[in-house]
Amino acid sequence: MSYTIGVDYGTNSVRSIVVRCADGAEVGTSVFNYPAGESGILLDPSDHNLARQHPGDYVAGLEASVRGALEEAASADSGFSVENVVGIGVDSTGSSPIPVDASNAALAMKPEFEGNLAAECWLWKDHTSVDEAAEITGLGRGHRPQYLAKCGNTYSSEWFWAKLWHCLNVAPEVFDAAYSWVELCDWVPSLLAGVNDPRAVKRGICAAGHKALYAEDWGGLPDKGFLALLDPKLSDLRDRLYEKAYDASEPAGELCSEWAPRLGLPEGIAIAIGEFDVHYGAIGAGVDEGTLVKVIGTSTCDCGVVKANKEVADIPGICGIVKGAILPGYYGIEAGQSAVGDIFAWFVNNVCKGDSDTHVALTEEASNHGPGAIGLLALDWNNGNRTILVDPLLGGLLVGQTLHTSQAEIYRALIEGTAFGARMILERVEEYGVPVKRVVCAGGIAEKNPLLMQIYADITGREMLISGSSQTCALGSAVSAAVLAGSERGGYDDFETAQAKMTRLKDVSYQPNPEAQAVYDELFQLYKKLHDAFGGVSSDDMGSVMKALLAIKDRERKK
Amino acid sequence: MSYTIGVDYGTNSVRSIVVRCADGAEVGTSVFNYPAGESGILLDPSDHNLARQHPGDYVAGLEASVRGALEEAASADSGFSVENVVGIGVDSTGSSPIPVDASNAALAMKPEFEGNLAAECWLWKDHTSVDEAAEITGLGRGHRPQYLAKCGNTYSSEWFWAKLWHCLNVAPEVFDAAYSWVELCDWVPSLLAGVNDPRAVKRGICAAGHKALYAEDWGGLPDKGFLALLDPKLSDLRDRLYEKAYDASEPAGELCSEWAPRLGLPEGIAIAIGEFDVHYGAIGAGVDEGTLVKVIGTSTCDCGVVKANKEVADIPGICGIVKGAILPGYYGIEAGQSAVGDIFAWFVNNVCKGDSDTHVALTEEASNHGPGAIGLLALDWNNGNRTILVDPLLGGLLVGQTLHTSQAEIYRALIEGTAFGARMILERVEEYGVPVKRVVCAGGIAEKNPLLMQIYADITGREMLISGSSQTCALGSAVSAAVLAGSERGGYDDFETAQAKMTRLKDVSYQPNPEAQAVYDELFQLYKKLHDAFGGVSSDDMGSVMKALLAIKDRERKK
Repeated sequence: MSYTIGVDYGTNSVRSIVVRCADGAEVGTSVFNYPAGESGILLDPSDHNLARQHPGDYVAGLEASVRGALEEAASADSGFSVENVVGIGVDSTGSSPIPVDASNAALAMKPEFEGNLAAECWLWKDHTSVDEAAEITGLGRGHRPQYLAKCGNTYSSEWFWAKLWHCLNVAPEVFDAAYSWVELCDWVPSLLAGVNDPRAVKRGICAAGHKALYAEDWGGLPDKGFLALLDPKLSDLRDRLYEKAYDASEPAGELCSEWAPRLGLPEGIAIAIGEFDVHYGAIGAGVDEGTLVKVIGTSTCDCGVVKANKEVADIPGICGIVKGAILPGYYGIEAGQSAVGDIFAWFVNNVCKGDSDTHVALTEEASNHGPGAIGLLALDWNNGNRTILVDPLLGGLLVGQTLHTSQAEIYRALIEGTAFGARMILERVEEYGVPVKRVVCAGGIAEKNPLLMQIYADITGREMLISGSSQTCALGSAVSAAVLAGSERGGYDDFETAQAKMTRLKDVSYQPNPEAQAVYDELFQLYKKLHDAFGGVSSDDMGSVMKALLAIKDRERKK
Repeated sequence: MSYTIGVDYGTNSVRSIVVRCADGAEVGTSVFNYPAGESGILLDPSDHNLARQHPGDYVAGLEASVRGALEEAASADSGFSVENVVGIGVDSTGSSPIPVDASNAALAMKPEFEGNLAAECWLWKDHTSVDEAAEITGLGRGHRPQYLAKCGNTYSSEWFWAKLWHCLNVAPEVFDAAYSWVELCDWVPSLLAGVNDPRAVKRGICAAGHKALYAEDWGGLPDKGFLALLDPKLSDLRDRLYEKAYDASEPAGELCSEWAPRLGLPEGIAIAIGEFDVHYGAIGAGVDEGTLVKVIGTSTCDCGVVKANKEVADIPGICGIVKGAILPGYYGIEAGQSAVGDIFAWFVNNVCKGDSDTHVALTEEASNHGPGAIGLLALDWNNGNRTILVDPLLGGLLVGQTLHTSQAEIYRALIEGTAFGARMILERVEEYGVPVKRVVCAGGIAEKNPLLMQIYADITGREMLISGSSQTCALGSAVSAAVLAGSERGGYDDFETAQAKMTRLKDVSYQPNPEAQAVYDELFQLYKKLHDAFGGVSSDDMGSVMKALLAIKDRERKK
């Protein structure tokens, strides 16, 4: 019996699982909550856009969660032994770049940078780089349109270069001290592999391609000439980053002599290449050509794959189309919604001043209202719009409230708003020739909220299938490790076989109700009208409203 | 020492006050809450638009509140004696028509109509007649544009003919049994005067002109030919309504032998003509040419007067311009916002699940945010828009919410939304030549919420003065009664003198802050953009959104 380990770095915690290669059984799990900051996130009360994380928490969490999962496996599965662990895979949020020194040590873990937020990991949802992202978009469109075409024609403030450039602009002492920058999903595998030179870190093509404008077509990272347009220091930095990034057919390394005893695992086992959580999540949910995997959590990520021997059109507004990003041999396609569960949490926590029981009560009450009967419509943009507008400078919108509108009706409108956003993405990828024959949902919300899933089915007109694992991302990492280990060591020789054996769907699924679908089709036309107007697609006049509000707010808060 | 009584029929209660004519001192007050329905309103859970009231509550409340006020006056003012009461005035909400039989008895108080909501008083905020109002607007524009020109070119579902026609359409048995219909503000004075023939009821020009398309210019009520276009039965009814309506220089009658002992007052004292609450409220707040009185409560009414010897242009979107409606010898101009306090109450009660303490806490917290710093903008249309769009088929809108937006920030946005709506009205009346040299605010919110008043000052760029009385409407009724009684009996011979002696301002007032004003000027441009787009002024595309949502909601709720 062979086992692999999947380690999943989420936004608030890291989770490790021990998976039996033969059948994908998850025999041990352990979660470590990041101790620093607020729920693991370092915030700046004066700037809502800032979100950082302490790399020391990643290191402590790696040891604690893997050891915890192994202990559980040992007691839960009599066939289990650490000797039978044949590989380990890591996924994380992203783009979450970490500034490191020449020995690959995180600057934030060095005493001289204690308390300097710019030296910490720049968490995916850090939006401080809005101006830099806009400039990269502008320069890219003007000078390197091919770069932008692969990321929906707009570079995001959540991404690698915008963050590094912002660091250079606001904290030059950190930028100058950073020998290099490593994505969290690459950095952890490099620790496990004992890599102490950033240039030797095996970078995953997933983070490189989706967030750092990397593509083999143009020789890897953006050329130095382009980076010099941003800042000569970014051009210089290129030499200290990487020449080549790898897909999951390549190992990130082998478990080193330092970390093997720290984790209690055999030295030398395979370490899978790092990928983003949702990409390994897609694998854990059984992605293949024709399947769209939706990982629905605080935000939603949509992942699909198309065989790399085909031509894939550039899809406007899609986060990225990157060869090898998810599965080797396939284009990985990623889209997403910047906030989903976060919107419900905002409404319950900030507006209703409720708690987790409130979610349950509001969901139950919301299910008493049929489609259309609430008279409300919401735009799901409280955290901006990732796909298809790629615009962080947007805000939420609720329309239609009367003097009788209830909490539950608003809650339902917010759910519906995210479902309409999901439909926009589905229609966009299909419009550009990516087939969607089935939709598999993963994540806590997909598992726990049947009302939401039914609304998603009714609004998209698609059956909603549910991933069998509650830990899809970690499972995908474990699958990747099993493929890397190979059939000789009890793993598998290809992803297709590994997915067939190690992943599954739940029995339950949600079928669209034709009557509800008809009502939602009407409402979707209204949603699109609002979407296109406030998103600046159809009317420049409305398109300026949210931006003006944000600009006035930023200015007045600084007074 | 002479005294008059003012009786004010509000939405949830009736309030009587005893006022000393010499100085306007309010020496006795008593409030009677209507016992029927929910806070005095008869509702229909299946139709949010329905709002009725039981006339029996008006009768019981008249006796109880007048007696209560007299008792308090007797104990509070040693100079007081019921013998010195020289008049009584009545105001009420409106248009609130009551179906009556040939003896002027309310149908709803007869056993055969018990439980029939159509036989009750049709409260001002009953919006069941939307379709009929739209048809009257259409027919009026086509056949009698002069009728519509005086009421902002749009007939409202809150008004007399729409309500009667709707009754005819949905409850023909009530319509057929009604010999006539009498506005609440006319009906109570007719009870006091012992009038037992609806045709003999002295109707006030206020209700007639503002709600029933009455004008001397075209010979009173709409002609029978026009009413026959609606329904021949409405044409027939015209003969059983009234030929002439009166301004406040005319008495409604004298206190009859039945009601004098019921109230404990001298028989034969003057009864002022009935007017709407806000119109007498304007008088109680000291309205004159150049003064705009804002009565800010659950909704807001704006009243102004212009000397009748001048030409007054028709003002699009203004509820009415009626000669003699407020002060004799003046055009009365009324505008308003369908919901103000009701919006704050909705947010606190329905969304925050709070209580009156919540209003206090949110106001305090909201005052910590400067203008523009919340990044939010709200349309104040949860109950439709009375002025300047005259459109009940609109809904609320909130834009700009993030994942950090707090209750207090939304609360502030809602206050600001109503202030922007107030500015729209101010600008509209001024644009059409009605001078506004000062703004006097009355009503509970104006007295109790300095933050709201400051925001109103900042957004309108006007000093906000506050009426000295907390019972402005009842005080205005008492002023009218004092003028009717005349100086010989210790009253006054004209309104100007009576207002000078009997009304006052509070010492506190709110000056616009130039810095805040500048920020709000920017936000007002955004508000106007949303207003014009969703109100259908600038863009038919957005203008259809709220209407479509409401139509879908109505249809789906009926399923």
